[in-house]
Amino acid sequence: MTLKIALLGFGTVASGVPLILEQNSEKINQLTQKSISISKILVRDEQEKSRLMALGHNYHFVTDIEEILADEEISVVVELIGRIEPAKTFITKALESKKHVVSANKDLIALHDKELLAIARQNKVSFYYEAAVAGGIPILRTLSQSLISDKITRVLGVLNGTSNFMLTKMVEEGWTYEKALQTAQELGYAESDPTNDVEGIDAAYKLVILSQFAFGMTIDYKDVIHQGITSITPQDVTYAQTHGYVIKLVGSIEETKSGLAVEVAPSFLPENHPLARVNDVMNAVYIESIGIGESMYYGPGAGQKPTATSVVADLMTLSNEVATVGEAKLFNNFNRPTKIAKLEDNQSAYYFSIALSSGDKVALTDFLKNEGITVKEFELEKSSNDETLAMISTTSITKQVLQHVQQKLAESSDYQLINAFRILGD
Amino acid sequence: MTLKIALLGFGTVASGVPLILEQNSEKINQLTQKSISISKILVRDEQEKSRLMALGHNYHFVTDIEEILADEEISVVVELIGRIEPAKTFITKALESKKHVVSANKDLIALHDKELLAIARQNKVSFYYEAAVAGGIPILRTLSQSLISDKITRVLGVLNGTSNFMLTKMVEEGWTYEKALQTAQELGYAESDPTNDVEGIDAAYKLVILSQFAFGMTIDYKDVIHQGITSITPQDVTYAQTHGYVIKLVGSIEETKSGLAVEVAPSFLPENHPLARVNDVMNAVYIESIGIGESMYYGPGAGQKPTATSVVADLMTLSNEVATVGEAKLFNNFNRPTKIAKLEDNQSAYYFSIALSSGDKVALTDFLKNEGITVKEFELEKSSNDETLAMISTTSITKQVLQHVQQKLAESSDYQLINAFRILGD
Repeated sequence: MTLKIALLGFGTVASGVPLILEQNSEKINQLTQKSISISKILVRDEQEKSRLMALGHNYHFVTDIEEILADEEISVVVELIGRIEPAKTFITKALESKKHVVSANKDLIALHDKELLAIARQNKVSFYYEAAVAGGIPILRTLSQSLISDKITRVLGVLNGTSNFMLTKMVEEGWTYEKALQTAQELGYAESDPTNDVEGIDAAYKLVILSQFAFGMTIDYKDVIHQGITSITPQDVTYAQTHGYVIKLVGSIEETKSGLAVEVAPSFLPENHPLARVNDVMNAVYIESIGIGESMYYGPGAGQKPTATSVVADLMTLSNEVATVGEAKLFNNFNRPTKIAKLEDNQSAYYFSIALSSGDKVALTDFLKNEGITVKEFELEKSSNDETLAMISTTSITKQVLQHVQQKLAESSDYQLINAFRILGD
Repeated sequence: MTLKIALLGFGTVASGVPLILEQNSEKINQLTQKSISISKILVRDEQEKSRLMALGHNYHFVTDIEEILADEEISVVVELIGRIEPAKTFITKALESKKHVVSANKDLIALHDKELLAIARQNKVSFYYEAAVAGGIPILRTLSQSLISDKITRVLGVLNGTSNFMLTKMVEEGWTYEKALQTAQELGYAESDPTNDVEGIDAAYKLVILSQFAFGMTIDYKDVIHQGITSITPQDVTYAQTHGYVIKLVGSIEETKSGLAVEVAPSFLPENHPLARVNDVMNAVYIESIGIGESMYYGPGAGQKPTATSVVADLMTLSNEVATVGEAKLFNNFNRPTKIAKLEDNQSAYYFSIALSSGDKVALTDFLKNEGITVKEFELEKSSNDETLAMISTTSITKQVLQHVQQKLAESSDYQLINAFRILGD
């Protein structure tokens, strides 16, 4: 028996799919009782088709999605084009043609999952996307199948390989942000427009998807607070290190009494925290729960073979479910009413770096005290342009207090807030 | 609808099952469309029954397994007695009574899995045991469901919490083995007879089970080479640290060209290896594969709630499979002919500590060279009893060469081999 599939797109990840199917055919055939065969591949135009065939790729390339939709032998469409359109239209049409869909498209799923999952349900087909979050880490299926019995209270993730590579170099080699970005671009880790990676947008998309699987809540992307790594200075890195912390871009989802607090931001992690050791382009998801307590899932967040391996796992799961149950299952069954945390329930300790017109420690401490902020540690330093820089760690404050003090500092002529980063607890 | 279960035993882990069922009932009910209810609990005798009831436990305790087997409403039996008998007889009878079985009993499964799985198959019922390996880490289901598409080449695991706690104290606090063992016993981590934990037997059982799920091979326990932590000296710990390594009790399964090399032994891990940071009673499984590359799964290896959470995940999975497919599935479908690696294919770099009658570095280097061993680093030190101690790291050698040199050193009057530990690669 053969499971016939179509690929949409033949970029880096897509071309990894036949690699995995071939290199691991023995196990795949045994565990699905089938072989998986690529019937058709959709490419952009005749020019791309010619280019790929000239490179020796011996597939049935097509340039019109209708050729795939009309092929009744194809039961699964694998979308690996990325971004929103035309991927969204193609996936919609595939589901409406009663074809199961596998995708690695986090942007699309984070922004349009409700709509697409509804179309899948209506047409009694499945929509799987293990590769969309943390590429090679099987975190979504682990959440929906293995952590089924546990109540998760907090998820912390290092979810963007590009920014983690840059921060690792900034922390371990003392590189500036600019040098780290340039090197990431030279190595092909960062795109020429690195916005999605360095501004936390990519990680925010992943948090939207993780929230569904870990907490059963479908949050809107706009409810994810996100802050990137562009403002991190060597002073911040040094302060963190001398106080026993490592700065990482951490995506967090925490269930508070009013709902989920979801945020991507540069964060101080205690240096003995399991996530603090996740370096270079590696990703990890750290989970706090009432049953297991703490667990972590670590692996590559991107890359051709890791991502293709997750895509093929979706294909095999689909194939086995269709064979045994007769229809494929929902990827995630956990659903609760979505609630977003009130600002006053969203709490964290903070690190502030504040430029001062004078080095008056007492005045700044009092200023912060007036805003309801208790200073735990206070250091003064001369900055490179001869300003005085106060570096402060606080006890836990709410987002409400944070926003208020940010506004007060903006209004003040004595102080200028340079950075405010969360300090995550031990 | 209700899934009715029986517990065999009501010790620490078993009494965690009702805790998890209660604390997480909302999610459990939603994801199974059922409630899970404990109909009967088997205890040893009337005395234990009275003791538990006096403590306020309001369950239907029974002292005869037949009362559970004859109860047709009970569809799953959860065995949490541990060790071989009477657990084996009870599981056999439960399976023969067409009841699914969930167990956390690694000793039993490692030694008698073939027999028990055959009985389960004959009776068309399932036998699940996620909690048997690394308690709270969902490694077995991850291997059989998420890593289904990947070809695993090597598994390294820190699989025994007790010995890892002891080694962490020996490495970080400089404690002796004796002090570490005493503290572990005082804290309840080690039993009064710690043999299974400190001699690597417990970890070896787990490797037998992991071999099935990761490599599809059912190896015999006797084919697992195992060596404990009892001989590790402070000198070994210091040598490792000054050379950039951490000593851990590592269980490893590697597929060589002739078959699986399976071993538990104290091992030098590079200090930047993800497993090197797994401390105290935590466990982790690190996987090398052709698709994902490297991934790690980290969490508590034991404990009431983590283990009970894995048991309840098995119950929920069973419940959902019976509801949708009509029968429960095999826990692991991956099966290949079992092959054990030839000694000459089982290779590693090594650390030797050798006591010498004289401090002749050249003579010992030549002695080793004659055995086919290339010395990479060589240090001489005075031991506590004024002997000279050579501490040596070698390039990669085979187990054949290792056994030969061990025999030669045993025959020699000049040398006494104190320890030989693997150095695992970066």
